[in-house]
Amino acid sequence: MNRVKIGELKFNEPCTIKGWLEKIRDSKYMMFLVVKDITGKIQVTIEKEKMPKLVEKLKGVIANSVVSVQGTALKSEYVKMGGMEFIPTDIEVLSVAEALPIMDDANIDNKLDYRWIDLRSDRNILIFKIQSCFTNAMREFLVKNDFTEIHTPKLIGAASESGADVFEVKYFDKKAYLAQSPQFYKQMAMAAGFERIFESGPVFRAEQSFTNRHSTEFSGFDLEFSYIDSVEDVMSLEEDLLIYALQKTKEQYGEVVKEVFGTEIIVPTKPFPRMKLCDVYKEIVKYGYVETEEDKLDLSTEAEKLVYKLAKDKFNHEFMFITDYPKDKRAFYHMRKNGIPQGYDLIWRGVEITTGAQREHRYEYLKQQADEKGLGEDVKFYLEFFKYGCPPHGGFGLGLDRITMLLLNIPTIKEVEFLFRGPNRITP
Amino acid sequence: MNRVKIGELKFNEPCTIKGWLEKIRDSKYMMFLVVKDITGKIQVTIEKEKMPKLVEKLKGVIANSVVSVQGTALKSEYVKMGGMEFIPTDIEVLSVAEALPIMDDANIDNKLDYRWIDLRSDRNILIFKIQSCFTNAMREFLVKNDFTEIHTPKLIGAASESGADVFEVKYFDKKAYLAQSPQFYKQMAMAAGFERIFESGPVFRAEQSFTNRHSTEFSGFDLEFSYIDSVEDVMSLEEDLLIYALQKTKEQYGEVVKEVFGTEIIVPTKPFPRMKLCDVYKEIVKYGYVETEEDKLDLSTEAEKLVYKLAKDKFNHEFMFITDYPKDKRAFYHMRKNGIPQGYDLIWRGVEITTGAQREHRYEYLKQQADEKGLGEDVKFYLEFFKYGCPPHGGFGLGLDRITMLLLNIPTIKEVEFLFRGPNRITP
Repeated sequence: MNRVKIGELKFNEPCTIKGWLEKIRDSKYMMFLVVKDITGKIQVTIEKEKMPKLVEKLKGVIANSVVSVQGTALKSEYVKMGGMEFIPTDIEVLSVAEALPIMDDANIDNKLDYRWIDLRSDRNILIFKIQSCFTNAMREFLVKNDFTEIHTPKLIGAASESGADVFEVKYFDKKAYLAQSPQFYKQMAMAAGFERIFESGPVFRAEQSFTNRHSTEFSGFDLEFSYIDSVEDVMSLEEDLLIYALQKTKEQYGEVVKEVFGTEIIVPTKPFPRMKLCDVYKEIVKYGYVETEEDKLDLSTEAEKLVYKLAKDKFNHEFMFITDYPKDKRAFYHMRKNGIPQGYDLIWRGVEITTGAQREHRYEYLKQQADEKGLGEDVKFYLEFFKYGCPPHGGFGLGLDRITMLLLNIPTIKEVEFLFRGPNRITP
Repeated sequence: MNRVKIGELKFNEPCTIKGWLEKIRDSKYMMFLVVKDITGKIQVTIEKEKMPKLVEKLKGVIANSVVSVQGTALKSEYVKMGGMEFIPTDIEVLSVAEALPIMDDANIDNKLDYRWIDLRSDRNILIFKIQSCFTNAMREFLVKNDFTEIHTPKLIGAASESGADVFEVKYFDKKAYLAQSPQFYKQMAMAAGFERIFESGPVFRAEQSFTNRHSTEFSGFDLEFSYIDSVEDVMSLEEDLLIYALQKTKEQYGEVVKEVFGTEIIVPTKPFPRMKLCDVYKEIVKYGYVETEEDKLDLSTEAEKLVYKLAKDKFNHEFMFITDYPKDKRAFYHMRKNGIPQGYDLIWRGVEITTGAQREHRYEYLKQQADEKGLGEDVKFYLEFFKYGCPPHGGFGLGLDRITMLLLNIPTIKEVEFLFRGPNRITP
């Protein structure tokens, strides 16, 4: 008999349901099972005297086993779950579980040891459904706007960008490295005339960071496009992309996000507010923030949080673009105008989710900026991309895991990665 | 002035075009440029006497430079390209090219050294547009069918499956490895109750293979789903998925594929033919194939080619599922019925594009099968996934690069990967 999902059961139609045994209650005359699949749960009611074979089959079977149950869903005023119970004619035990090695109240690191059990809750599966929906909406937007998806290599011959924080790979009798970002290669696509590309793939960072939002491997979403006039075009596209993806996600999951995660998906309006780094500090000192010398170069974590407050107070917005960072703190490949890097960070709900920029596409300038940072030799292969003609272009990268954290108000990245990877964690 | 794509130009409307200088012809009174963007090309005609400033700006500028041209598209009976030419009022040189270091007739390895130049042809960019369209269609099909996209880690703590052919990574003071496939983790998602998942991501193989269809890093597309009744459900889903994606790709690119690659996109009918391995050999010996002892275990490359002929001759089909491989040659995690692995290979146009199977989801059987292959210790972490309840499930993986090769009749994988990676190639 064909399987019917529990969420789609109809009264009085014989069928088969399949799922986890969430609970078993065994009393003198009755046995009550709660069977759960990805769409919902239902009580299976067994009159023991009438169904001795079923009772026999369930001997020794404990919760978390997986079963297939033939029977019929009936109306029941005694059962809370949708006023429905399932009366079985046969049961097959598909997989017998041992007693779970972790409890619901285990700490996050213990839970990660048994991640496949930890993930089983409705809440946790929902995190990934929502992430999948958001990513898919971004792809849909980009495909509609003539972007081509590419796959750039993660095995690279030279340590990219700065050379620090890169994992080394034993590559036959040579050394290779794992790409920290697709930055150089998505720009290569511009030099190849692709005009508009995006990529979704893993990003590797050999950082000894133990914060709630760093991991050594995460899911990046990057794009790059040609023939822009300025960094404004990049910001504008990012606005459109995020509005589209948040709108789609809200339509599909807005209600359940409110219910399960206690937070609202807010679709932002265009344009997002923009502020220069130095102006941000002028504003947040009013909140009692004490500026340091370091702050002239970058936003501190504390300052990022206050940017959220500022964006809400001043612009009634959740996002803010911060521009005009000093060149010392920005990558050499950001185009400069009057010495100012043409790039930005995007802060959402107090956390940086993007760095974007117009890139320097002219070989001589780019080489000079690389040399200035002492990178000339390291990035020689990359500089070659710009020698034989390259359109002006720009782009940005998003971290999907961070976005998921912020969207659902989840405090740690460990909960939003399918399997978290950190300096002390490469299993399971 | 806003940029208009060359393929979308209208007569007599002042605008700006931007693109590569494909050709420059400089005669006594006239200068002819061919400007090309991703949508098409057009001749820009300059009367030198009338436009001395433009001539000045183009001094020393050679083909492959990138320009922005203001002007108007006019009808012209002298010009072949759509009977249209572009009369400029101003030109800006956006990027000055050096003379190209490679010629069109360079061999493939020289071309790969300068891949960004090699990719510039219409044909090569088209390869990736088509691949992007195909992949996107597969995602669309799966999302419609309740699949969730996940991202499993590529950094793993234990060498997966056999331990051979795995790249080793220096992971702080420990060792890690690069995932050969998401196999174990997509099954983990089943043990976590995700029911239906897919993943598109890089796959790493430390193989010293120098064939036309092997690379050390390629793009995998994997899926897994629960509550199947048998491997037939897996084959059926793969049929539906490929039919959908080929249909969509044919609609969008069928004509141009015929024109540029000289091959037809054929949308297959369901069901694809199925044959047992032993029966395949019985048939292909009729084509003069000489069977060896090895052939009892697997299909040789030569035999795969003859399977294509067989599929066409016997079933008028391009695909064939081969089933009933002996257990010695199949992964330990394939479910067995009467000793026969419940898996298949799918052969398309003479090349294996998929291995799929129903998996063994019952801990005791799985452990026994792992032990039998001497893998008990290596896969201990993976066996844990099945101890605490797991639904019956199955799935398959596709290589996107191989599919692109076959779809477009391209003889080597080096041409269909954005940047090929092989034992001797990790640059650029």
